Amino acid sequence: MRSEFDKNLISNDTLRKLIDICGEKNCACKKEELVCYGYDATKKHFMPDVVIFPNNSGEVAAVMRLANEKKIFVTPRGAGSGMTGGALPVCGGVVMSLARLNRIINIDADNLTAEVEPGVVTGVFHKTVEKKGLFYPPDPASSAFSTIGGNVAECSGGPRAVKYGVTRDYILGLEVVLPNGNVINTGVRTAKGVVGYDLTRLIVGSEGTLGVATRIILKLLPLPASKKTIMATFNTMEKASQTVSAIIKSGIIPRKIEYMDNAAITCVANFTNTDLDTKAGALLLIEVDGSEYETEQQIKRLNILCRDTGAKEIKNAATKDEEAALWKARRSISPALFKYGSFKINEDIAVPRSKIPDMTNKIEALKKETGLMIITFGHAGDGNIHINIMLDKDNKKELEKGKKAVEDILDYALKLGGTISGEHGIGITKSVYMPKEIKEVELNLMKKIKRVFDPNGILNPGKIFV
Amino acid sequence: MRSEFDKNLISNDTLRKLIDICGEKNCACKKEELVCYGYDATKKHFMPDVVIFPNNSGEVAAVMRLANEKKIFVTPRGAGSGMTGGALPVCGGVVMSLARLNRIINIDADNLTAEVEPGVVTGVFHKTVEKKGLFYPPDPASSAFSTIGGNVAECSGGPRAVKYGVTRDYILGLEVVLPNGNVINTGVRTAKGVVGYDLTRLIVGSEGTLGVATRIILKLLPLPASKKTIMATFNTMEKASQTVSAIIKSGIIPRKIEYMDNAAITCVANFTNTDLDTKAGALLLIEVDGSEYETEQQIKRLNILCRDTGAKEIKNAATKDEEAALWKARRSISPALFKYGSFKINEDIAVPRSKIPDMTNKIEALKKETGLMIITFGHAGDGNIHINIMLDKDNKKELEKGKKAVEDILDYALKLGGTISGEHGIGITKSVYMPKEIKEVELNLMKKIKRVFDPNGILNPGKIFV
Repeated sequence: MRSEFDKNLISNDTLRKLIDICGEKNCACKKEELVCYGYDATKKHFMPDVVIFPNNSGEVAAVMRLANEKKIFVTPRGAGSGMTGGALPVCGGVVMSLARLNRIINIDADNLTAEVEPGVVTGVFHKTVEKKGLFYPPDPASSAFSTIGGNVAECSGGPRAVKYGVTRDYILGLEVVLPNGNVINTGVRTAKGVVGYDLTRLIVGSEGTLGVATRIILKLLPLPASKKTIMATFNTMEKASQTVSAIIKSGIIPRKIEYMDNAAITCVANFTNTDLDTKAGALLLIEVDGSEYETEQQIKRLNILCRDTGAKEIKNAATKDEEAALWKARRSISPALFKYGSFKINEDIAVPRSKIPDMTNKIEALKKETGLMIITFGHAGDGNIHINIMLDKDNKKELEKGKKAVEDILDYALKLGGTISGEHGIGITKSVYMPKEIKEVELNLMKKIKRVFDPNGILNPGKIFV
Repeated sequence: MRSEFDKNLISNDTLRKLIDICGEKNCACKKEELVCYGYDATKKHFMPDVVIFPNNSGEVAAVMRLANEKKIFVTPRGAGSGMTGGALPVCGGVVMSLARLNRIINIDADNLTAEVEPGVVTGVFHKTVEKKGLFYPPDPASSAFSTIGGNVAECSGGPRAVKYGVTRDYILGLEVVLPNGNVINTGVRTAKGVVGYDLTRLIVGSEGTLGVATRIILKLLPLPASKKTIMATFNTMEKASQTVSAIIKSGIIPRKIEYMDNAAITCVANFTNTDLDTKAGALLLIEVDGSEYETEQQIKRLNILCRDTGAKEIKNAATKDEEAALWKARRSISPALFKYGSFKINEDIAVPRSKIPDMTNKIEALKKETGLMIITFGHAGDGNIHINIMLDKDNKKELEKGKKAVEDILDYALKLGGTISGEHGIGITKSVYMPKEIKEVELNLMKKIKRVFDPNGILNPGKIFV
């Protein structure tokens, strides 16, 4: 993409104007500074020409006005924790960090709403509202450092989505700076509102390509009084999946139903000091919430359900420490994976939950066929599976095989009625696969909507659409 | 709008083609037939030129292709139960009834999804899934006859929104016929999905102006095992509203929290045989759901909360019959209102729930100022208030006063951080007020999106935008 970037060089005059808008100390131009804002969780890297840190929505608007006038690319950036390259300045230009816009403006317990700036760290927000007995459910794995603004851009999910839904379901309204510098307000501060087209949800999940959210109105819930965890192992993934179906059919919606396949269990067992059963075909980690009585009852019923579907072993966490110990297995997967290859392809397909065994069978077949190490884990409750293909990045033949396996996996997910991305989005890593799911007519509509918002194509260029 | 219509006359050739597409018996041209499809719940009337009843999405697509080619207006129609004129053929042309597309295609208990055609009656769908132990929460007051397609177009709400959200929250994906006849598929069949822009939620609530949904993928929940009702009366609306805040703060989210003001109570007491306390300033009707134990506990706590905030009287429904008797009061409001004037202006503003007393105080002041009868009731749990200004339609001065009162109410709702429509939409009755809430920049974006979908402006013309 550097050829596009070459056309997009920032003149000294423009740089001076950016400094005038944001202040000298909020504009970084030195190479060692720029390097830090050119990567994200994809580990890909693209050099920006300048990184700016606007202090408020007025400065964001002034920057966008200038960029639109000079036709300079702007890539908005939260914490850079995205998995598909949404925050990467693939065409160079300006990286606009929203880190300074990090105020929690208000938390309204009466109306169960909050208003925040985009740079608020999701995990900080969780803790802040929980101290007030309130609850913000979206919990992407990166929540310790990801920002609400980034979560809005990507429509982030997380384990609690099975019961509580995703970021989209908690965004009531937005203040958004458009690519031309105009500021719009979308949505409402009320539980209901149906005035005009739903610009709020159009912008949520648009991966920062339609506008820069500078203020976010969130819906909150009362904090559940109690939560409890149970872990169960099974001989086969089928048994685990049958258990998930039985749980849902019984009327219990746990707040998390996570699973790990045998490869993930083994990987974690080799990496950490746990007593995980490496002979188990699959493991379920289930968390329920509600009143103290309700969670007790649910855990009792889950024990019976797991036993009935033939669990090998069931562990109930009696204390917070035991709970943490059980969840340690799940949390250890990502760090443990690094031991298995210098490079991994990370996919996050979702399938209807009853189709998980079909998908895992497909992956077993692919492992045999390709000889590749493929480790799967994820959100069994909502069918969102994280598939990790471990590769030696210097082995071209292996890379080819990996690429072919990805195509097979995505095609099969779609065949099962699923989607190629449950929560990571398209960015740059999946845009080549997008036409598998989104046909030309829909793609053209999306491209035309992009042009309505951004006729000059300056905002987060090179994303979503190939 | 007839002048526009005059330009839109349907030629005999076009009529013949419509008959070729849908079949002779599925095209109505006689005046007595046309009359029936020119009205809706607004009681306004506009004559269409022809009413067609396509049998499947292929026929819908063929009609749209023809209409787009000939530049003929098409107004899609569900049950005509909308409150703002969404289904009215204000520019004449074709009314396209979706009544024949009324199949429930599947109900998938494992994955908690269903797939339906737009003409399925909401109440029929409720009963069908409930028989299978499943639950579709959106429950607009018209659900006995309104259709899921109409609910999608309007993003319908209802009393259960306080706990469960609105129609938008239960639509996973759509098959949509675009104004040019192209058929698109949006969204997913999974709980999560973030591939491309969210066309699904852009179309939900767009009041049939962007496309015609011909297939709808719905999210379901397990049916709660138990529900229970409590009614409490209060001396003042403030007390009732404080109680609502106290309930939410206590961590209980009832599935319904409905209220009636003194005028609504009196109106119903005069109309039906009930023992309602006409001296009460306000009445709350609260329904909770969950497990049997959970609802019992919640009802106990609600009794304490209502007593603590100074309820005049509390009634607990012990049986299904007692429950029905309590809800009769709420259900009787609309029919009872007809006794109080030949004409009513019906608004459905929403305010943050803690602002309900401010709004009801404003209405009390307006009553005194104008001498008009104004009756309010609605969804106290989510701040969505139905305001009914009763008028003599032959009294011009009263009509003027009513119009002025509406402006005052809408302005004040916005001042309180609310919206001019919680669940009825804009249609034709509120389009003149829309610029109060949606500023020019946002409006222009919406109009440009409309042009992306419908460059010839043939689909549901004259709606939303003035």
